[in-house]
Amino acid sequence: MKRIYLDNSATTPIDPLVLESMTTAMTENYGNPSSIHAEGRKARATIEEARKRIANQLNCSIGEIFFTSGGTEASNMVLKNSVRDLGVGHIISSPLEHHCVLHSLDSIKESGAARISFVKVDREGKVDLDHLRELLAAANEKTLVSLMHANNEVGTLLPLDEVSKICQDNGALFHTDTVQTIGYYPIDLDKIPISFLAGSAHKFYGPKGIGFVYINGDNIIKPYLDGGAQERNMRGGTENLYGIVGMATALELAYVNLEARQKQIRLLRDYLGVQLENNVPGVEYNGDPIGGHYKILSVSFPKSPKGEMLLMNLDMAGISASGGSACSSGIDVGSHVVGHLHPDSERHTVRFSLNHHNTKEEIDYVVKELKKML
Amino acid sequence: MKRIYLDNSATTPIDPLVLESMTTAMTENYGNPSSIHAEGRKARATIEEARKRIANQLNCSIGEIFFTSGGTEASNMVLKNSVRDLGVGHIISSPLEHHCVLHSLDSIKESGAARISFVKVDREGKVDLDHLRELLAAANEKTLVSLMHANNEVGTLLPLDEVSKICQDNGALFHTDTVQTIGYYPIDLDKIPISFLAGSAHKFYGPKGIGFVYINGDNIIKPYLDGGAQERNMRGGTENLYGIVGMATALELAYVNLEARQKQIRLLRDYLGVQLENNVPGVEYNGDPIGGHYKILSVSFPKSPKGEMLLMNLDMAGISASGGSACSSGIDVGSHVVGHLHPDSERHTVRFSLNHHNTKEEIDYVVKELKKML
Repeated sequence: MKRIYLDNSATTPIDPLVLESMTTAMTENYGNPSSIHAEGRKARATIEEARKRIANQLNCSIGEIFFTSGGTEASNMVLKNSVRDLGVGHIISSPLEHHCVLHSLDSIKESGAARISFVKVDREGKVDLDHLRELLAAANEKTLVSLMHANNEVGTLLPLDEVSKICQDNGALFHTDTVQTIGYYPIDLDKIPISFLAGSAHKFYGPKGIGFVYINGDNIIKPYLDGGAQERNMRGGTENLYGIVGMATALELAYVNLEARQKQIRLLRDYLGVQLENNVPGVEYNGDPIGGHYKILSVSFPKSPKGEMLLMNLDMAGISASGGSACSSGIDVGSHVVGHLHPDSERHTVRFSLNHHNTKEEIDYVVKELKKML
Repeated sequence: MKRIYLDNSATTPIDPLVLESMTTAMTENYGNPSSIHAEGRKARATIEEARKRIANQLNCSIGEIFFTSGGTEASNMVLKNSVRDLGVGHIISSPLEHHCVLHSLDSIKESGAARISFVKVDREGKVDLDHLRELLAAANEKTLVSLMHANNEVGTLLPLDEVSKICQDNGALFHTDTVQTIGYYPIDLDKIPISFLAGSAHKFYGPKGIGFVYINGDNIIKPYLDGGAQERNMRGGTENLYGIVGMATALELAYVNLEARQKQIRLLRDYLGVQLENNVPGVEYNGDPIGGHYKILSVSFPKSPKGEMLLMNLDMAGISASGGSACSSGIDVGSHVVGHLHPDSERHTVRFSLNHHNTKEEIDYVVKELKKML
């Protein structure tokens, strides 16, 4: 049975062209980029070319892109080292952030190095911008705002332009976790005043284990991984060359095909919504399905005895979806996002997240199976 | 012209069987290991199998192996979090350690969280064990000893058994950077009392961007990368599945072929030494070529006007070697290791580090070219 993969916010399959670029690098480009001989120089050139390809897509300087092992390392680096190196004494975030942000904030709080505030969010997961302004106005310390561009569980989008402007007007630094939106929305870093940004290749059909952090040239922090002089003394450790090449290829493909993929995914996701409403009584959505990320539909099913087993039954029917984010589903705890938005709800959440390979036939099959199950 | 690669301490080419295992994983195993559906479970099973394959080679428990982005992250995690989480107030290390250790110690020192001492080393880079005992006896704080198993620049080996015993007898924790020795020497963690150990796949014909840390079950530290519940809550971030698979395959191959590879590399390296002595006047060695790592020959050439350009001329002749470690050679600063061992020397150092694909003909060509150059 061919499986139907609707968990693309957890991770995406590697694009065949990305795989090809990686395989070439893995066979032909084995030097250490810090070595000065021919093999080393070739590896160095490949990495710097990849950095340029990524910077070009985001319209920033190549000197502002630093490779990391993924989005988690990027956000750890930004949050912890802004406190240590830039005198940040106050961080404003939201209760709906990814655990790599929330748990980094826990560490910072525990160390006593900075104060943490949380901005209010509404039932759709939208940040209360007036509250953000109030928190910023009331802060006496140097403040960093850390808010994700799209929520990974419910898809609600942050108005990046507006929030970055609010931060700028209040003299605050702004970090945004764009792990779910890089490669899915155009991001022009020359136009939007962002201090820091985190990205991860495996969310846009690139490999796992590689990501990057954008650090605006005005905000020089020190390394989070101390070691060799790699990444212009900003991140020790021999570079993951194959991953970097794969990420650059994947990002270019994502932006070259942006409109076509976006249109196709959005149409299918909306079709899924309509079919669910027509076939499954009492369906609701978490987040903001109209204005939110086009790849995500977080569906809330009415309480039912069969609801507990929904994901398992979907899996047995060959359909892969998620209860919350992948990072929490593995340990079987409820989603902190849906739990925050609907604290007293006993409904059952299934997050469907689509890619451009999904088809109308797959959606029809999913709805048919769900109808049988509920 | 086929190039001659003699910089295997900087990095090694990926073994074809390793590449094959990675390509299979990249095409067929794309789930997020934290997802509970079939794709996720398959990815999780692959990672846990790889963990077992690695633990088996080192004779430790699977619960003691945690995947990282490489040796640098592993040593950062151990050093910084031992101070934060285990009450370590004093670290004893050596001036010859890799920069990922030395610069982590700089960070710790700067934060004021622990005191740093350096044990004396002799001209061959051997640690003065009596001085280590003295430092341990004089310490009032909980102490961590961090010493590398083999020096990456000159190859000098640490007597692991003896040092780990000294640490145990003095109630000190012991961390060892085994980046140059994992896969080159048998390491039995059931027999040697080691607290922490760092490894990196790309040094033993595996991929870049992946490594691991061994954490003895008695020494529970908290994550260095805060985030999801990956690695049993010890390291956030979606796992680098392909890297992990490649690393496990590479480590198994390294140990299956250990004796054959060791014999071949040692013979060739010794042949290189003899030929150099016979053909280039005034050749000496850094470190301890007899008792040190069999893959490394750090050659010291007499001061000469042509010595400055030696690496460049070798490179132009198709020969890749290194001045010091790859991590420092890129920025063209002198090696901190050779500089410490021979502070007043004006001689020229070339580190040759061999692999099991090198041949006698290659060595003959290298010596012939060197003779011409000097």
